[in-house]
Amino acid sequence: MINQAMFGLGDEPSAIRELFLYGLNRKAQIGNDKVFDFSIGNPSVPAPSEIKESLLRALEDDPVALHAYTPAGGSMQALTAAANHIKRVHSFDAKPEQVFMTAGAAEAIAICIFALTVPGDEIIVITPFFPEYRVWVEQAGCTLVTVPATQPDFQLDIEALASAINEKTSAIIINSPNNPVGSIYSEDNLKDFAEMLAAKEQELGRSLYVISDEPYREITYGEDVPWVPAIWPRTLVCASLSKSHSLPGERIGYVYVSDAMEEAREVSLAVAGAARALGYICASTLWQRVFAECVDVPSNVEPYRINREILTTNLRELGYEFVEPQGAFYLWVRALEDDAQAFSDRAKAHELLLVPSDSFGVSGWVRVSYCVSKKTIEDSKPAFAALMAEYQERS
Amino acid sequence: MINQAMFGLGDEPSAIRELFLYGLNRKAQIGNDKVFDFSIGNPSVPAPSEIKESLLRALEDDPVALHAYTPAGGSMQALTAAANHIKRVHSFDAKPEQVFMTAGAAEAIAICIFALTVPGDEIIVITPFFPEYRVWVEQAGCTLVTVPATQPDFQLDIEALASAINEKTSAIIINSPNNPVGSIYSEDNLKDFAEMLAAKEQELGRSLYVISDEPYREITYGEDVPWVPAIWPRTLVCASLSKSHSLPGERIGYVYVSDAMEEAREVSLAVAGAARALGYICASTLWQRVFAECVDVPSNVEPYRINREILTTNLRELGYEFVEPQGAFYLWVRALEDDAQAFSDRAKAHELLLVPSDSFGVSGWVRVSYCVSKKTIEDSKPAFAALMAEYQERS
Repeated sequence: MINQAMFGLGDEPSAIRELFLYGLNRKAQIGNDKVFDFSIGNPSVPAPSEIKESLLRALEDDPVALHAYTPAGGSMQALTAAANHIKRVHSFDAKPEQVFMTAGAAEAIAICIFALTVPGDEIIVITPFFPEYRVWVEQAGCTLVTVPATQPDFQLDIEALASAINEKTSAIIINSPNNPVGSIYSEDNLKDFAEMLAAKEQELGRSLYVISDEPYREITYGEDVPWVPAIWPRTLVCASLSKSHSLPGERIGYVYVSDAMEEAREVSLAVAGAARALGYICASTLWQRVFAECVDVPSNVEPYRINREILTTNLRELGYEFVEPQGAFYLWVRALEDDAQAFSDRAKAHELLLVPSDSFGVSGWVRVSYCVSKKTIEDSKPAFAALMAEYQERS
Repeated sequence: MINQAMFGLGDEPSAIRELFLYGLNRKAQIGNDKVFDFSIGNPSVPAPSEIKESLLRALEDDPVALHAYTPAGGSMQALTAAANHIKRVHSFDAKPEQVFMTAGAAEAIAICIFALTVPGDEIIVITPFFPEYRVWVEQAGCTLVTVPATQPDFQLDIEALASAINEKTSAIIINSPNNPVGSIYSEDNLKDFAEMLAAKEQELGRSLYVISDEPYREITYGEDVPWVPAIWPRTLVCASLSKSHSLPGERIGYVYVSDAMEEAREVSLAVAGAARALGYICASTLWQRVFAECVDVPSNVEPYRINREILTTNLRELGYEFVEPQGAFYLWVRALEDDAQAFSDRAKAHELLLVPSDSFGVSGWVRVSYCVSKKTIEDSKPAFAALMAEYQERS
């Protein structure tokens, strides 16, 4: 008598979460240092010290005001801080009323999907893609349409996207720096994308929105991450402190609705309405306060850069094929057999927890989250070597 | 091209939120002490000192572990604390795996609705009712069916409920202590309710769930609040620290799925699935930690008791009719004309912010939230007197 779709989603957690839970249990069995848990994007870098300082300052204040409801979209302090951050970093004229504070980027993306679509619409994602997109798109009654990234550089495939867009398409979700691949869409690639979107809008007579999922914007290794609202006006940016400030469990982020689009006010209100419809009241007041004080604090990318260097050096030496990451903290590694789940299972026997690519919408790869201790990266080399040897013996 | 229903929800915020925003602006204009803001359930009692102490202890810990993702349902510490709390307070054999931590009671109720229903189902609420129930029920594609509480004691009307239940009914939402009325459903009333539900299940051949929305459980003035899972097995309890611990903006609460029902595991998984489908990742890790340490800390009800005493004495003296509240911090006052909105507008002219009853599903009343300072209660008497005088002059 209950909802079977909901039961199904609860009974079969995401492959990432499942592996993460397996890892927690396995570590309890054989010890933390014996399991090479590359399953989840839980930052290994401590939150910047400014976070703790901000929390301590907040706790000196009147607790009634500190913990009170804010307006649904967020406190004026948080909204203003987000708008000023966008102005400062992107030289883009952002206004507080175009920001809506959320419980992280996940809420942000989910409410954008519900705000922009009606049941029967299509939403395009780029494979490989973050698996929860499918859950939210289907919950909104829409169809998820997948378009592969180009190979070998994992950029937007403009021609393939143009073929996939039709009169039912309401939005395209892009994610750069990309989870799971680590690619960054170049300015030229995004400009071609925008040009194609403009032509398609003309042809189809409907608006095409871009939901730009950007939790990894601050985690890059040299490349710039172009600011999408400056390239395509119908952009909604979903941002979060989860990765940049190492606060994944605290759920603080926002949607920014570019007011380069003329219907910006209507879209912002639909975002607010969707948050309300899904049971969101406001982002945590304490975390909104910390957000307002700390959004400009720079990310500490150095440990990830070091991990990336050691991991790619090791895997290259061992003969693995992978995509050189430009951002985020994931390495996209070719599985040593076609069946990524089988490969992940064999890796598990070596205590290597690698997420099979199937739930990202493609076969034959695994995602290695290198947001772990440097020691885990170093210590895992023999396990990766043994895994490779096992496959070499088989062939 | 956007979703018009979402736009509508965003464009027309709840009457409570609208009045709350009006109050914020009005206070900025004429001063905090000049506006008698009885609009919102923002607790006026400071959070217990244990909350701050717990936060300070947490901040001494490793920030990586402190702010990391927990499993979607919550940390084992938080789940165990919730289960032990239920065991201790209600002598009821609760298990951690039957608890799911949420961003407050609102998420809890929303995900219960999505977990238990399929589109086309009906959900029954008792009028007057918390207005957001309608939003969540309709978002799930269900029909909200209203059944008035009995008069004058605002209990469950068993006969009327029996008439309203049919083969499409999947759940009944009850809320005791009640917002907006302040009534508590008695043990006898709930037993009659359960007996009726059992008969209806037999008759209809389907399961009937009770969603027990209990954010005000700890705020009572002498009456006991019966533990619903001990009376009806198919109960899902939605709880929160928002009101009891004065943390409304922090969004920490839980669903407890009674395992007195045989399908408890399936229902729990559907709850987890619904949370996932709506974009919830986990409740704030820091707040889960505080929850685990502080859920047993008693509520400070005394200031509300004093406010209730002064307010009811004043309004009685001035000739207002109202329901004597047994719990929560709301006074349900008869409007001085049939049109509650018009009455609320006239009250506004006296700087009295009273929520009209229409959005609670009934006409002719207003809700007075007395979770304000004692001074606001005292200072508001002349305004209430002037409002009464205005109506007496008109008649």
